[in-house]
Amino acid sequence: MTSSVFYSEHAWPELEARISAGAPIFLPLGATEQHGRHMAINVDVELPTAVAARAAALTGGLVLPTLAYGNRSQPKSGGGPGFPGTLNLTAGTFSLVVRDVICELFRQKVRKIVTVNGHYENIGPTIEGIELALDRIGRDRADGLVILRVDHWDLVRPETLARIFPDGYPGIELEHASVIETSMMMALRPELVDLEKAMHDGPAAFLPYDRYPRPCEEVPPSGVLSLTEGSSAEKGEWLLSDCTAGIVEAVAREFN
Amino acid sequence: MTSSVFYSEHAWPELEARISAGAPIFLPLGATEQHGRHMAINVDVELPTAVAARAAALTGGLVLPTLAYGNRSQPKSGGGPGFPGTLNLTAGTFSLVVRDVICELFRQKVRKIVTVNGHYENIGPTIEGIELALDRIGRDRADGLVILRVDHWDLVRPETLARIFPDGYPGIELEHASVIETSMMMALRPELVDLEKAMHDGPAAFLPYDRYPRPCEEVPPSGVLSLTEGSSAEKGEWLLSDCTAGIVEAVAREFN
Amino acid sequence: MTSSVFYSEHAWPELEARISAGAPIFLPLGATEQHGRHMAINVDVELPTAVAARAAALTGGLVLPTLAYGNRSQPKSGGGPGFPGTLNLTAGTFSLVVRDVICELFRQKVRKIVTVNGHYENIGPTIEGIELALDRIGRDRADGLVILRVDHWDLVRPETLARIFPDGYPGIELEHASVIETSMMMALRPELVDLEKAMHDGPAAFLPYDRYPRPCEEVPPSGVLSLTEGSSAEKGEWLLSDCTAGIVEAVAREFN
Amino acid sequence: MTSSVFYSEHAWPELEARISAGAPIFLPLGATEQHGRHMAINVDVELPTAVAARAAALTGGLVLPTLAYGNRSQPKSGGGPGFPGTLNLTAGTFSLVVRDVICELFRQKVRKIVTVNGHYENIGPTIEGIELALDRIGRDRADGLVILRVDHWDLVRPETLARIFPDGYPGIELEHASVIETSMMMALRPELVDLEKAMHDGPAAFLPYDRYPRPCEEVPPSGVLSLTEGSSAEKGEWLLSDCTAGIVEAVAREFN
Amino acid sequence: MTSSVFYSEHAWPELEARISAGAPIFLPLGATEQHGRHMAINVDVELPTAVAARAAALTGGLVLPTLAYGNRSQPKSGGGPGFPGTLNLTAGTFSLVVRDVICELFRQKVRKIVTVNGHYENIGPTIEGIELALDRIGRDRADGLVILRVDHWDLVRPETLARIFPDGYPGIELEHASVIETSMMMALRPELVDLEKAMHDGPAAFLPYDRYPRPCEEVPPSGVLSLTEGSSAEKGEWLLSDCTAGIVEAVAREFN
Amino acid sequence: MTSSVFYSEHAWPELEARISAGAPIFLPLGATEQHGRHMAINVDVELPTAVAARAAALTGGLVLPTLAYGNRSQPKSGGGPGFPGTLNLTAGTFSLVVRDVICELFRQKVRKIVTVNGHYENIGPTIEGIELALDRIGRDRADGLVILRVDHWDLVRPETLARIFPDGYPGIELEHASVIETSMMMALRPELVDLEKAMHDGPAAFLPYDRYPRPCEEVPPSGVLSLTEGSSAEKGEWLLSDCTAGIVEAVAREFN
Repeated sequence: MTSSVFYSEHAWPELEARISAGAPIFLPLGATEQHGRHMAINVDVELPTAVAARAAALTGGLVLPTLAYGNRSQPKSGGGPGFPGTLNLTAGTFSLVVRDVICELFRQKVRKIVTVNGHYENIGPTIEGIELALDRIGRDRADGLVILRVDHWDLVRPETLARIFPDGYPGIELEHASVIETSMMMALRPELVDLEKAMHDGPAAFLPYDRYPRPCEEVPPSGVLSLTEGSSAEKGEWLLSDCTAGIVEAVAREFN
Repeated sequence: MTSSVFYSEHAWPELEARISAGAPIFLPLGATEQHGRHMAINVDVELPTAVAARAAALTGGLVLPTLAYGNRSQPKSGGGPGFPGTLNLTAGTFSLVVRDVICELFRQKVRKIVTVNGHYENIGPTIEGIELALDRIGRDRADGLVILRVDHWDLVRPETLARIFPDGYPGIELEHASVIETSMMMALRPELVDLEKAMHDGPAAFLPYDRYPRPCEEVPPSGVLSLTEGSSAEKGEWLLSDCTAGIVEAVAREFN
Repeated sequence: MTSSVFYSEHAWPELEARISAGAPIFLPLGATEQHGRHMAINVDVELPTAVAARAAALTGGLVLPTLAYGNRSQPKSGGGPGFPGTLNLTAGTFSLVVRDVICELFRQKVRKIVTVNGHYENIGPTIEGIELALDRIGRDRADGLVILRVDHWDLVRPETLARIFPDGYPGIELEHASVIETSMMMALRPELVDLEKAMHDGPAAFLPYDRYPRPCEEVPPSGVLSLTEGSSAEKGEWLLSDCTAGIVEAVAREFN
Repeated sequence: MTSSVFYSEHAWPELEARISAGAPIFLPLGATEQHGRHMAINVDVELPTAVAARAAALTGGLVLPTLAYGNRSQPKSGGGPGFPGTLNLTAGTFSLVVRDVICELFRQKVRKIVTVNGHYENIGPTIEGIELALDRIGRDRADGLVILRVDHWDLVRPETLARIFPDGYPGIELEHASVIETSMMMALRPELVDLEKAMHDGPAAFLPYDRYPRPCEEVPPSGVLSLTEGSSAEKGEWLLSDCTAGIVEAVAREFN
Repeated sequence: MTSSVFYSEHAWPELEARISAGAPIFLPLGATEQHGRHMAINVDVELPTAVAARAAALTGGLVLPTLAYGNRSQPKSGGGPGFPGTLNLTAGTFSLVVRDVICELFRQKVRKIVTVNGHYENIGPTIEGIELALDRIGRDRADGLVILRVDHWDLVRPETLARIFPDGYPGIELEHASVIETSMMMALRPELVDLEKAMHDGPAAFLPYDRYPRPCEEVPPSGVLSLTEGSSAEKGEWLLSDCTAGIVEAVAREFN
Repeated sequence: MTSSVFYSEHAWPELEARISAGAPIFLPLGATEQHGRHMAINVDVELPTAVAARAAALTGGLVLPTLAYGNRSQPKSGGGPGFPGTLNLTAGTFSLVVRDVICELFRQKVRKIVTVNGHYENIGPTIEGIELALDRIGRDRADGLVILRVDHWDLVRPETLARIFPDGYPGIELEHASVIETSMMMALRPELVDLEKAMHDGPAAFLPYDRYPRPCEEVPPSGVLSLTEGSSAEKGEWLLSDCTAGIVEAVAREFN
């Protein structure tokens, strides 16, 4: 019917055959979270989905439907829950979704799972979801199950960061909606980026603690935590290429 | 940036503007569930998404990311959890996702929500999720919030069913992966349908009760509960057209 | 002490002996939900309890205390939560009760369980409760456990429906507090039925979607969704007889 | 239709009228728990139901369906979970049922609630359920709601205990299935008591701590913690009379 | 590094060695709850911690960090939630903490656990937490795990009570912040007791039922349920000595 | 009775007075987690407790009992759950404890709360707990409540880091049980540090993803992620001083 890397575009007999042949299954974890005036709200969905799709194509894997709603956005990493447009899950709900999907994959005899995360705040609840799944499956009965948990930005090589930031990498903390994510989106979905609309109101200057309720003024009005200047599709390809290579390598190392 | 009907393809300022102008927000509810040897596993994702997108285009609305994992598939309505490829959420998890998304929409000042469901087993947990959201928001503080809960098949007109089933409609119970869903998929995603692969091993003959563990033989081996013969893209368009019209009418009636 | 079919009317040594001899255990699932001006609010408790008791008498089984509070009543199947007198559980709570009781029966070495349901809205949360119990027990350690899940109305034979509705069966959807339930109550608890008080304000004409908050006018003021005319104790006996026979047959088929 | 004290035996218009006239609503809380070889397993259901019914008759109240499954039986107060026949809920589930029923009563405009408990282990989870309900309702919006939580044995007067135990009251701790409960059952359901079957294998001699897993030998084989000698229906009536009077008095004091 | 009886004052290699050598592990369960004008709010933390430490010293055991927040204080046993200063957990949360800690101890290969409780209201949720842990571990895979659940006051010998209360023991029900607890605190933390500030406004005279919302006047204004007169450090030592001996004896009996 | 900064060492009248006078309340958040062969397992308890106590002394505040069990230790930040001695809570449980304590503080009229965290993995579940508390309290009824969430290491000034690491700061990621924590423990609890036992088996070299189950070899055998060389009590004082000053400044800025 199709040679798609997407799990959902196959009929069940093909899925059964692919799983039984050992295909790694990729679960992209995203969010619906503001990413500045210059980009669509689906950045954290598009990036891990694209990275997973490229890696799946190279490893004979299949990509599951992306979780498009992520754990609560925080001001220091994504603008925070109060930013217009952002729609969050609670940590508990997010963990249960991860738990359920992993338990179901195990029940369907999948033993090679890679979660590919695109939203910083998902890290903790993904770990919790994986642990809850292992509890439910029974760690002593998990029968060869291996799960790799990847945050795509951790796979970017230092050389690439040095090329992109010749004056020094400002650090992942402030990269929300900034050069890295903007460049990757320009490579993948240029129609959803409009650099004209990027404001230069950053970088954010956060206090060294969180306050509840959040003070209104702490995030730059644009929602961009650092800068977008210098973003380009070419740089986006460098980044996507690193992320893809990193996953392919991890799959080769861990699933044999 | 874009005139997309999809919420996720806009930057936050556009979303803020559209919500504040009263755009209805559509939440498609799907599932990753086998739909026979002749169709991809994403039928319950594609159909409500497409219906919601058409309705949004006609009502100035926006379509949220579809929930692609649904409540536990049952043998009598979807082949059941044991069918290869199917990946379910528990009812509790599904309800919490619905609850969280609705609470977040309310927090973002959305007051017009339409859930468009494509998976029979989602009905109960969607109701539960809506009720939990209203509990959390506070029914006396819900401030004009109206939620419409639509199952797309309920919007098909009797005349259309009569045209499609001149010998009598077998009833929605057995329509899983059968003429209605197959026709709609042929209209929408013909490359994900291969009628050559459809087997004629139905209709299913279920006992008038459920048994746990499920007996293996009760669902036809193909996973189709009834028949696929006579499916066509043209019929699919009739059906899509009814569903769209039904939602547009409901929006007009309820959101003024 | 007693030859009662009710589990709760025996001392523990008798229960231990009966379970160890393989008695099927029946769990009736009911609700406290309005059933029109002409019937008491316990219809969904009385009917499954009576059906279970008759089936238990014929199969050497025992009937557990009925769950008298059911999952959230819906307008289209029971008048809805807003009707005076109705007292609902949330779906989550109902599922946990079912889970706990089944786990306890398993722990007490019961391996033959029949849930007999009298409330439409209980179907989903009962399935969830059974699945949660099997998760907790461990599906690979369930050791011969078989659970049958019965909705009593599904056991009525087409011939009986044809006899009761010579002009055609309006369908189970609108049967709430109508001829079927009224007739069965007249057979079982005639003192709790007063046909004089039945109003002829139906049938309900529902829109093809749900709305939250619910519009006040959609359910007929009486709470009866269809008609009560023609109800009789004799018809009630036909129905009870079918339901009983259906369970006896299922027990014979599945528990040997 | 009926002048029953039981809520479930009325049609909704009568319930609406009674609630609006200020009828106190009684919720009996029971358990399905062994009570020796000489009594049926429903003692903790029968006693609070009967006490509530008598009190309702004297106060114009209505008695809800009894919760027939209680919180985990403990060896020192009921023989423990391992005793044959006993079927427990977890504390969490029991609390949620209490929470849901109270929230629903509040929603139905009931403002006078009396829980009448017959099972020692229910005390804690009932308190939890009431507190969870008040949290959910909102303590500042509870609008006149008053809940009385009664354990029936606390309403027995010292004079009555002195009459029943002329040699000194052994204390409520060991009264499980002993003279007090046996006498009350003899007054209420004599056909479910068979003193011939009472063994004299008590009183239980517990260690001053709990052990998990429980040692097998700690509860007397009969399941009776103390003695049954001297039980009589007459004494049962004294006890029922005290309990009823105590509730009537509490209702008079608190609901005006 | 240290010969401390406190688990938390060792580095991991010592803990690993001690656990593998079979050291019993003590988990003190406390509360942050008012104890009159004359004592600090940490009585329920100090007492079980001290008792556990003494018992650990005599049995080669280790004492875990005390749970300092307990289950909801009740008026009749601790003054109730409304008393200033008291900070409660819900029963559900408390049970989950107990569950998690026990599961973790089991995972770390601990097979001898003693919970030492100092707060009456913790009893039920501790039992629930232990049962939930055994469910999660799997009762058939618990591999020699034994848990003793101790309430320290149950280990006081009748002779000691007779010495302390020559005119008769008023009963544990009213002992909150009274002679027993005051004496033990005087022995352990005299600087946190100021008998000058003790008021003589008791004993409490409770009605034989609970009322929600609680009437303000039922607890004596001081928060002491009975009397403090006659408290002394010497009596405190008698009590501590009984509690310690009781645990040492239980450990010897059960862990061989 | 006492001038202690610790909440638990006061009787309720003093607490009531202090809260009503506006004392900020500090909640230290710790963990029971391995910290190398050279330090006791209570590092994450001791450090935030000490920092909170110093800040409380300078701001007229009170320090609550420290949460001594933290969220699941991760290999990259604490050695991971498999390290001997470490005892974790699940994320869900930890969040519920935080939620409950904050709700109780609010109920006791506290409006100035500072959480002082010493365990990296607590960050996410603390945020979740605070959000759940605000949901439960009602954000529109929170009546002046302000919560500051502090991770103590974020308050260390760059100048101090430069003094301690003249060759460059290796980054907080690898600081587990290394120079910063070791120095602070040497300043606070020198008897719980034994530098002789420190091994030089680091720094850890982690792969850029997580794997489940965790590979055994990834954490250095000692459990120290970086180095301990150069640790000193003097440096510890510099660090404690920065942390304290940072909190005092935050309190001054936010609570006026």
